[in-house]
Amino acid sequence: MTFTKGSLILIDYTAKVKDANEVFETTVADEAKKHSIFEENAKYQPKLVSVGESWVIKGLDDALANAKAGDKLTVDVTPDKGFGDRDPGKVRMIPLRKLGEDVDKVTVGDTIEVDQKVGVVRFIGSGRVQVDFNHRFAGKTITYDVNIIKSLESDEDKISAILKRHLPVEDSKIVSKLNGKALDVTIPEEIFGAEGLRVIKHFTQIDMFKFIPSLEKINFVESYINKKAESKSPEVKETKTA
Amino acid sequence: MTFTKGSLILIDYTAKVKDANEVFETTVADEAKKHSIFEENAKYQPKLVSVGESWVIKGLDDALANAKAGDKLTVDVTPDKGFGDRDPGKVRMIPLRKLGEDVDKVTVGDTIEVDQKVGVVRFIGSGRVQVDFNHRFAGKTITYDVNIIKSLESDEDKISAILKRHLPVEDSKIVSKLNGKALDVTIPEEIFGAEGLRVIKHFTQIDMFKFIPSLEKINFVESYINKKAESKSPEVKETKTA
Repeated sequence: MTFTKGSLILIDYTAKVKDANEVFETTVADEAKKHSIFEENAKYQPKLVSVGESWVIKGLDDALANAKAGDKLTVDVTPDKGFGDRDPGKVRMIPLRKLGEDVDKVTVGDTIEVDQKVGVVRFIGSGRVQVDFNHRFAGKTITYDVNIIKSLESDEDKISAILKRHLPVEDSKIVSKLNGKALDVTIPEEIFGAEGLRVIKHFTQIDMFKFIPSLEKINFVESYINKKAESKSPEVKETKTA
Repeated sequence: MTFTKGSLILIDYTAKVKDANEVFETTVADEAKKHSIFEENAKYQPKLVSVGESWVIKGLDDALANAKAGDKLTVDVTPDKGFGDRDPGKVRMIPLRKLGEDVDKVTVGDTIEVDQKVGVVRFIGSGRVQVDFNHRFAGKTITYDVNIIKSLESDEDKISAILKRHLPVEDSKIVSKLNGKALDVTIPEEIFGAEGLRVIKHFTQIDMFKFIPSLEKINFVESYINKKAESKSPEVKETKTA
């Protein structure tokens, strides 16, 4: 049985530029290490995808719609369903003075921002640089090696996956409790001050109500403990053992 | 019985500059209207004071320490226990160019900010203005008419008063529930996005644990309702009545 639109699934994948055989993204720590793109602070874990809803690039999304849990796929995503064709008009000459303070540091291959657009420096001439504003993977076919781990069916699995998707903390710090049709989500203390916390809550509740329509209420809970009350117990114990 | 340090009390007061008989602050809406200082968005309600802890100006705080619930006091607060003496050195000549864009708009009596200090324009000369950086009430004796409404003894009264102190919403929107030694405080939806919300929670919990030391935990709860789930009921009803 293939997935319907809006099915929540977990996938592992590794993506590479087909021609260059260059791996640039993966959900698997070992793959990242193997291809020297491992980042210490990144979260390597299966990616949550709502099938058919553009959570991943079109060509991959299409392939997922025809797959099923347990499948291993190799999907070639061509530019028309991937990062688009290369547009020669997006390669432009920029006066060096536009680069401001960075002018002395720029070298070929650098990624720079000009007029809020990001591009790659292709050539440095007299007074000007050539910058390619095409997407890094425009015109490239991307190969995805995909492992469809599971389809999430139970409310508990969906809740857990949605919280992992949105809360920027270690999985072990994610705590929630389903009480009938109300869900309590404990906000970990380390993100009480996170700048985007309100936005995190907002998108978490949107996903929750979308994928678990029977849910009626979500309570985000930030708890403070009375540290003085806590420290009383040890003091009492000391007295007793003295 | 007079209050001990840290007693939580509610007071109404009206403050005026003694010599000028000029009322400048009050907790009572009718008084504000009577003296033409009423502000539509201000919250006129008794002020919460922890006696002897500088929640109000020294001279008033001292008077409260010797009062009791039900007392009505008139307290003259002299500059040494009030807004301080006038310092002639804080009256300074400022070059007009320092005022920047405001230079053409300034008139005598205006409050302006120069070098992060707030002062009042006393005189405008050729190329310079005289600005008085003393506190508006420096050197003045202030008369407080105080009505000590009550001393807060029960945990419920303290909780309610502390929440009113910190949450910038109408009293009717403040909801909390004490479950044994844990307090749930519902954050009203209208302040989910308030810039200072984290700071509000922080100071609320500090006050709560200070004045209700037996409290072990405070949960700040932000609830989201599934609006689609809510709207299902009316739809069903329509079908039935059709």
